[in-house]
Formats: sequence, structure tokens, C-alpha cells
Amino acid sequence: MSKEITSRDENYSAWYNDIVIKAGLAEHSAVKGCMVIKPYGYAIWEKMRDQLDAMFKETGHVNAYFPLLIPKSFLSKEAEHVEGFAKECAVVTHHRLMNDPDGKGVVVDPSAKLEEELIIRPTSETIIWNTYRDWIKSYRDLPLLINQWANVMRWEMRTRLFLRTAEFLWQEGHTAHATAEEAIEEAQTMLNVYADFAENYMAMPVIKGVKSANERFAGAIDTYTIEALMQDGKALQAGTSHFLGQNFAKAFEVTFLTDKNTEEFVWATSWGVSTRLIGGLIMTHSDDLGLVLPPRLAPIHVIIVPIPKASEEIDKVAADILAKLKQRGITAKYDNDEKRRPGFKFAEYEMKGVPVRIGIGARDLANGEVEMARRDTLEKSQVKLEGLTDTIIETLDSIQNNLFERSKQYRDHHITDVDNFDQFQDILTNKGGFVRAFWDGTTETEEKIKELTKATIRCIPLEGSEGEGICVFSGQKASQKALFAIAY
Amino acid sequence: MSKEITSRDENYSAWYNDIVIKAGLAEHSAVKGCMVIKPYGYAIWEKMRDQLDAMFKETGHVNAYFPLLIPKSFLSKEAEHVEGFAKECAVVTHHRLMNDPDGKGVVVDPSAKLEEELIIRPTSETIIWNTYRDWIKSYRDLPLLINQWANVMRWEMRTRLFLRTAEFLWQEGHTAHATAEEAIEEAQTMLNVYADFAENYMAMPVIKGVKSANERFAGAIDTYTIEALMQDGKALQAGTSHFLGQNFAKAFEVTFLTDKNTEEFVWATSWGVSTRLIGGLIMTHSDDLGLVLPPRLAPIHVIIVPIPKASEEIDKVAADILAKLKQRGITAKYDNDEKRRPGFKFAEYEMKGVPVRIGIGARDLANGEVEMARRDTLEKSQVKLEGLTDTIIETLDSIQNNLFERSKQYRDHHITDVDNFDQFQDILTNKGGFVRAFWDGTTETEEKIKELTKATIRCIPLEGSEGEGICVFSGQKASQKALFAIAY
Repeated sequence: MSKEITSRDENYSAWYNDIVIKAGLAEHSAVKGCMVIKPYGYAIWEKMRDQLDAMFKETGHVNAYFPLLIPKSFLSKEAEHVEGFAKECAVVTHHRLMNDPDGKGVVVDPSAKLEEELIIRPTSETIIWNTYRDWIKSYRDLPLLINQWANVMRWEMRTRLFLRTAEFLWQEGHTAHATAEEAIEEAQTMLNVYADFAENYMAMPVIKGVKSANERFAGAIDTYTIEALMQDGKALQAGTSHFLGQNFAKAFEVTFLTDKNTEEFVWATSWGVSTRLIGGLIMTHSDDLGLVLPPRLAPIHVIIVPIPKASEEIDKVAADILAKLKQRGITAKYDNDEKRRPGFKFAEYEMKGVPVRIGIGARDLANGEVEMARRDTLEKSQVKLEGLTDTIIETLDSIQNNLFERSKQYRDHHITDVDNFDQFQDILTNKGGFVRAFWDGTTETEEKIKELTKATIRCIPLEGSEGEGICVFSGQKASQKALFAIAY
Repeated sequence: MSKEITSRDENYSAWYNDIVIKAGLAEHSAVKGCMVIKPYGYAIWEKMRDQLDAMFKETGHVNAYFPLLIPKSFLSKEAEHVEGFAKECAVVTHHRLMNDPDGKGVVVDPSAKLEEELIIRPTSETIIWNTYRDWIKSYRDLPLLINQWANVMRWEMRTRLFLRTAEFLWQEGHTAHATAEEAIEEAQTMLNVYADFAENYMAMPVIKGVKSANERFAGAIDTYTIEALMQDGKALQAGTSHFLGQNFAKAFEVTFLTDKNTEEFVWATSWGVSTRLIGGLIMTHSDDLGLVLPPRLAPIHVIIVPIPKASEEIDKVAADILAKLKQRGITAKYDNDEKRRPGFKFAEYEMKGVPVRIGIGARDLANGEVEMARRDTLEKSQVKLEGLTDTIIETLDSIQNNLFERSKQYRDHHITDVDNFDQFQDILTNKGGFVRAFWDGTTETEEKIKELTKATIRCIPLEGSEGEGICVFSGQKASQKALFAIAY
């Protein structure tokens, strides 16, 4: 099986696609730009969602659900938002089909034209702030800390499974506050939740920062971001959290009575991560044999394979291991399908990224041992049956840590400080990764750099960006360093 | 607060609406026919979803996600399905907006017309069976046991919160099998899962049965259903499970190689329940003071209120109760808001249906007691602080059982056997509920009865329908009893 996938060196993009397809994560659908998330891919999303949901609830948020469709006029209410989101989107214009008068299937009923067109939500700020107008009357109604798990749609021409699709699944938090300070704190809190999730569950190191004006969310005052680095040296924006100021409150006339009895506009944040995270997960850890999953997000932790095939004794040992692992909250499976040889099974579970494989053979059993293989390093070892559960749990922890350390080492090695533009271009072309350099803060410089190198400002990192220097491109005085990269 | 809601006797429909709004479950949105599910309503849906999801997984199902949009031509492929679903639906015709040349907001870009219109899924049989064609090649790929949690849309003119809305949330199972027998067994298994959930979690008694040809799902060979009875004597279809035969396999050319090396069409089922269940939950248990929730689906089990207001001692006792309840998996809240009097709080938590209320006052504390009130019977009692956790857990169990027994008694009392049509009409008009009668099995009779009484055949119950008799309407020989009712 492993021979079937393209190697990373040969073609990184084909390698990525091969993994998504061959590990059974997702596939393209009959509807252009929309994907089918297959059961194994969806099981990873469920693990992500459940963990994030628990973290949102721990930080005081509740879930709700708002309509899929947004009246067209809502999109125009916030001037910058409409520029960003009212372009490529799915427009509902009619509400009825009828039998084709020519007898060929069904056609749109021209008499069922909507008075106002409806847009499938590309994001829900507008419909939600239109609703908040009725929910918020006084400071006692604040803060409002609401999250929604939903599908959204942005008409994309060039799609890539998980990374960029017309329809995707995500969560979008929309909070309302009495003061700017509180809203900014909320936006930062959620950025930290995302970073915690990325690093401690996905084992994917991220840099926290703030976007340049040019890369900001349409309608935001500030966009905070976590940026990750993929194995091909390209950056991936993995989650964003926006301080929206009073922009949406003003657009939708959401005011509140303060405790001093004055009327003020409400302060807002929004924040989201999506199924795109699965793309980041794949590109952070996987190898030429297939998917590599951090144990904390793996649908199956341990696969048990009889060698060369099942016997009464092996079945019994396997059942015992399964029971003990289940007690400790570890998900394991015993594959005793007789129609497939062990080598075939090994390749399949390597493709699917199952973190630990236990092989049980009669000879090892005689010594009270089984074979254990770990997916991250591909190391095999003989381990004692006695205490196997503990050995496996320690190994899973070790894999989780190793994946993080390995990708952090790679990422750290691919942050290069430069102080002239030749070097800037050289690093981007020959080494890849993040380039850190002084930037004069102008959109003009940012755009010229992009034009020349395809690199964009991923963020101004929250840490280590301060200082006084000379802009790497313009030669002007600069008071901050930016992190540049070519990005997904 | 309780004065604000209409009583059931006065106007059942207004009472229902008052509860949905005043308990903070849902509200109408700016988009006609679409609702906003508010945090408290969504918390109930989360409880339902998590429990159902666990039951689906226990019966071997996995989740996946299929596209929101369905090409128009797919709907025409199954002849009966198109009649049922390709009528009132949301049609996407364009994929871009542009700035209005007159400078007023945005308009649909006429150049961005889709070649083929896309429909927002009213249900997903078509897109899923189009996908299954590639997933199923041989008997070794079967059975395929997949479920999807999703939003769907059916353009409804007359909507009621939760009961009938244009967009709603649901789950839809879509399974594929090698034999008719296995598919029928699956459809029945899921019917039993639904009945188990309705009775043991929602505390809502249901009758399991099969639909008449006229009431079948469009494209099904048989539709199994669970039917519940609301307090106003109207029936509610709470969940359906369909044996689809080979209809969708034939429409989408999904065949498989049998173990005898022959090519055959695949057998199918689909099954679903939706946010409509929340409507059923409300109308089964609630009273003129507000929502009544079975403990197993209540977002908050216990509310603790200081009487008349908090003190250091009361705070300490409350914290201790909270900690002990948490340990036992019980969700409790302490409301020590000083700005609201106890009476106001009592009314509010009664409105929200919190099953148990604990009132803590100084005088009771001196006796080592607190006051406990249960929402189902409104009974109050003095209970000992010692052993309070056990008392509360027993009370929650007792409430869960009482709600089921109470509604079962009501339901059983409202199943009336009749053998002539005068009686049939009399019962429907004056008593309500289910009327059980021999039916000749013809659609003609069924439709005439509906025309005259508005009652439809809810189902042929799986139990107790056999026998030989005379049709209650036509006087023809009949070999089965049907359950009739006026339904939501």
C-alpha cells in the first residue's frame, strides 16, 4: 500500500492528496468545490470538536444555532464586511421547483422568486448581530458569550480537500461586551485557547500574533492569529480571533444601557477554527507511509494484529489486552481478518496513522512478550505482556510529546531573521519557512514584497517583535518585526 | 413570571409558543421560516444529540458529512422521491454578488449564473447514494452503516418553532446492505433505538408502527414510525425509519458483487429524528407554569436558592452541596443574585423546567434541613442536609419515572377502540387522542376519512393490529387495525 502514495520530495501536493484519499479522510463530491468527509476523517473532526467544545465551555461559553441563510441586505450593512464576504457566495433566489413542462425532470418555478435573495452564510456576524439587537438591552445582559458549530460556504474556484473548500465545517464564537478592554481580553483568551489546542492536542506548534491591516478579517479592528508551519516550508493560518470594536453594533444598531444610565454601542469579538485544521494536522506530522496522528486526536489508539494469523490463544490474549485498555480509556481494535496477511495490515494501519501497533505471535507469547511498533518513529520493540497497558499508555504519551518536539524543532529551525531583501528572497527560495524582518508598517511595502516573492505577512508576533530597525524592503525606519511566509 | 404565559385551556397553541419564547428555547429569525435556537434550547438539543449519538455508535454506526447542496438533476432520479421533495425547497442559482451599479448595496451578478441549479438538501438520500456508488463494489464493503448530523431545509409557509420550520437540525442515517432481510432488520433496529430514546430519556411514551402507503416517505417501501400523543390530544410523529428497498440503488446504479460472484443492487435504509423532538418534549410534560424537563435531558438538574438572601453560612452550605452533586455527575447552579427576590427566582426556574429546587434558609439550617421542591408535582418538602445528595438523586429518578408514567397514563387513556364511524367522529371531536379501528387498507378510505375528520392514519401499530373485522368507514372486510389521529 505504501508504494501507492507519492513521496513528499517528489510532489508535496500530490502526497497530501494521496494521504487524504488513501487514509479515507475525505473526497471530492459531485458538487463542485464541496467535499465528502468520510467516516475516518469525521472521527478526527469529532475528537477536535469535542475537545474544543469542552475548552469553550470551561471559559464560560454556551452554544446556540443561527439560520443558515442571510438576507442579502444584511451583508451590505457593515462597509468593510461586504467587501470581504459579499462576493463569491451561494445565492438562493427561488423557493420552488416544478415539473418540467417538457417532461424532463424538474425546473425552477419562475413564479417562486424570492423578494430578497438569501445568501448561504459565509460567516454569521451579520445575522447574529441583527439578533443581538433584541437580546441586549442593558449592561446586565452582558457579556454574551455564544458559540455556534455550523457549516458555512464561500464559493471557491481552486479547492483543496480540507484546506480550501466551498463548504466547510467550523465553529464561530460571537461575543458581546460592555467595554473595549473586555472584548480585547476575550479575543486574546480565545487565541490562547486555540494555541493550547493546537500545541497540546494537535501537537502542532504555533506562533501567536496579530495580522497586518491588509490581512485583517473584513470588519475587524484587530485580527489575532495562530500560524503554523507545514513540512514544505509553507505557513498555515490555523485559527483567528477578531476584536470587532463597535463596527457590527453600529451597523445593526445594538446599544445598551450602561450602569451609569447612558446609551452605548456594544463591543464585539468573533473567533473561529474549521475543518482546515485537519489539513494542518496531516501536513505537520505525516510521512511517506501515510498519516501520522497525535494520540490525543486519533480515533483508534492501538491496533492489535495476530502474527501470522489468529489462534485460540492469541484471541484470548488480544481480548485481555482490549479489555484492559478500554478500562483506561484507550481505544483499541483487534484485526483478526484471516483474508489479509500481516504485512498488508501493517501497511494499512500505517496509512491510517494508528499510533501504536501490537503484533501477537506464538513464539513471542511463549516468552511472555508481544511486538510493539510506534507510528511516529516506526521503531519496533519486544515488550512484556506483564504491564503492557502501562507500557502502551507511556508510549502514547511519548508519541504525543515526540510529535510536538519534532515539529517544533523543524519550525524553530525554519524561522530565519534577515536584515536585507536579498537574504529575504534567498531564504524564501532556498530554505522556506518563516522569515522575520523589520517592516515599516505600510501596506505599500507589504504588497510589493508579496508581488516580488509571493510571501505575505503572516503576523506581527505577540512576542519578540518590538525594537527599532530598518525595514527590510523600503529602508525606512521600522519599529516592529513581522513574520513573512508563503502560505496556504 | 408565570402570569405571563397563556394557560393550556385558554389556547394550547399560544401556551406552546409562550413556553418556547419565555423559557428561552428559540425564537423566529429575520429569515422567514427559520428559527434561532437559543442557548438553553440548544443545550437540550446537545443532550439529545449526545445520547442518540452514543446509541447509534453502540449499534455499529459511524458519522460522516455530505454536501449541503444537491444538484437539481439528482432529485429527479428517483421517481417518487422527486414528487415528495423537489417542490418547496431553497434553490441556489448564482454564485456571486456585485456592487449595485446604482451604488445601493449589492445585487446578484447576472454573469455568475450556475449551469445547473443546486438545492439545499431537504434530505440527503440522493447525494449519499450517488456517493455510495463509488464506495460499494463487493459484498465485503457491506453493510455500510453511516449517520450524519446536519441542517436541512424544506420551504414551509406555515411554521411553528421546533415543530415545523424551514431549516431544522437533524440526524439522518443512511445504510447499505447485501440483502432485503438485513435492511429491514436495520430499519427496525433503529426504530427500537428511537423508541428507547423517546421513552427512557424523553419520558415520552410512543407507539411503534408502520405507515400506510399514503403516509410513507417518498421513495420508501416501508416507513416505520414512532407516534407520541401531546396533551391537547393531537399526535406527533417523533421519528421515522425507512426500508428503501433497492429504489435508490437503482436510481443511482449502485450494485455490488455478491459472494456468489453475481452483480446485484444494494438494499437501503434511512432514518431520522430532528429538533422537532424538542417540540414533542415540551408538549408532553410542560404545564401552565412553564417548561417541565425530564432530568435525563435537563441542562441543569438542580437550582439552589438562598432564602431570603445569601449569607456566609448559606454560601458555604451551597458550595458544599454543589461540590457533592458535581462528584455524582449532577449539574447544579447556585443563584445568589441579590437583586432578585426568591419568589422571582422560583418562577423563573419553574419556567425553565429545572427538575429540583433547593431552598436554603437560616431557620431550616438550624434544624439541619433545607427545602426541596420538585418541578413535576410542585411538591415541597423539608429534607435533611445529611444524605442530601442521595435524596436529590433519588428524587431525580423519581421525577424521570413519574413523567413517563403520567404521560403514559394519559396516552393509554386516549387510545379509544371504535367500531363505527359515528363513534369515530365523536371521539375525535369530544375526547381527542388516538382512535383505533379496522381499516380496509385502501388509500381511498384513508383519504375520505381525512377529508371528513382531518384525522390521518398515524400508523398500523406493530403490536395488536392483527385480526379480522369490518372497516370503520367503508364497511368492507378488513384485516388490520389502524391508529388514527389529528396530528401536528
